[in-house]
Amino acid sequence: MDYNYRHSSRRLTIFAHFFGVLAFILMLIWLLHYRGGLQYDSYDNYDRVFNVHPFLMYCAFIFLAGEAMMAYKTVQASHHSQKIAHMVLHLSAFILGVIGISAVFKFHDMAGIEDMYSLHSWIGLSTFCLFGMQWLFGLFSFFSPAATPETRMRVAPLHRAAGRALLYLSICAALTGIIEKFTFQRLKNEREARLMNFMGLSILLFGIFVDLSVALARDSSPPY
Amino acid sequence: MDYNYRHSSRRLTIFAHFFGVLAFILMLIWLLHYRGGLQYDSYDNYDRVFNVHPFLMYCAFIFLAGEAMMAYKTVQASHHSQKIAHMVLHLSAFILGVIGISAVFKFHDMAGIEDMYSLHSWIGLSTFCLFGMQWLFGLFSFFSPAATPETRMRVAPLHRAAGRALLYLSICAALTGIIEKFTFQRLKNEREARLMNFMGLSILLFGIFVDLSVALARDSSPPY
Repeated sequence: MDYNYRHSSRRLTIFAHFFGVLAFILMLIWLLHYRGGLQYDSYDNYDRVFNVHPFLMYCAFIFLAGEAMMAYKTVQASHHSQKIAHMVLHLSAFILGVIGISAVFKFHDMAGIEDMYSLHSWIGLSTFCLFGMQWLFGLFSFFSPAATPETRMRVAPLHRAAGRALLYLSICAALTGIIEKFTFQRLKNEREARLMNFMGLSILLFGIFVDLSVALARDSSPPY
Repeated sequence: MDYNYRHSSRRLTIFAHFFGVLAFILMLIWLLHYRGGLQYDSYDNYDRVFNVHPFLMYCAFIFLAGEAMMAYKTVQASHHSQKIAHMVLHLSAFILGVIGISAVFKFHDMAGIEDMYSLHSWIGLSTFCLFGMQWLFGLFSFFSPAATPETRMRVAPLHRAAGRALLYLSICAALTGIIEKFTFQRLKNEREARLMNFMGLSILLFGIFVDLSVALARDSSPPY
């Protein structure tokens, strides 16, 4: 029924890459220039341990996961290779996510801060668990020889819809995290405040362009 | 290509209503029991003026807008009546949104707080402007006699994708707003903190179920 938006979808992918890389650069400037750098195994500098958390969570659950969603359009290879790229990118995201989450628990331990009281932590940890379940569900549905093409076609719309929901959950987790840090530091109109806002906006725009590029191209790729 | 998810989509709509109403109730308990109530024209109580803002923004840009998105499934009437319900619900959302936004500017004036420095305000005001543009774009594309069925079919996927992006933008605005207030009040594990977290989660789940119910039903309704 729908028109073929394959061409505009490609342009949307480029916008997505742009905002993804922009957010990555802004994140690095923020952590290295304003927040003292990253170090997971620091014994005395809590902040350097904490900084591993936003960096890895963005790289994993937003950038890599978003790129994985667009793999069917960006990876110029057979459909099977695209599927493998999609799966492996999500797996890497999950592994980096484990390190990123353990960094923030380590920071809380070092600084004597309570765990899991904020909305950010609730959204973040739920997203992480659901992400793991979606990955396993995807593996069984699309890679297992037991799943027939019939099953895959039935499961595909659910897999896509759940994947999109997870992308937006991750974006919400990121934005609530940024604003929590922003408010804790009592920032207003300093340069760091502007930088953090632009970083948050870039993350949001990355998510929106990933969603749009995938949604508008959905009729131009096979459903499983 | 996709299977018809009309039946599961109906169940998803019920989940959406449930979380929408739950968020509304939690919002009322929060504002009336913990935050001293709502009053737009209060001269001395800043907080009561502020409280109009989260209440109206949730009712307008999340609840009414979400219900408007589901109108094609929930309003048991002709397609034309569904279109009118969709348009009128969005228009009401826009009007309530204007009052809700002016409430927070009024609060800032009264309390001597700077405007527009936070990520919440940036996301919120951008969403508001884009929402207005999407409404006008929808009016011209789907109600103007000048737009042919051909144009409508071409525009529909863009309108749907942009609408979904706006729903998630509103959710991000709401969650960043809640967490900003939460952090300003330095809440931790008090009852109010839990209530606010559950309210935030309900808002997020409302958005996700609206999206899922509309996305999974997309092949069971005409595209314009």
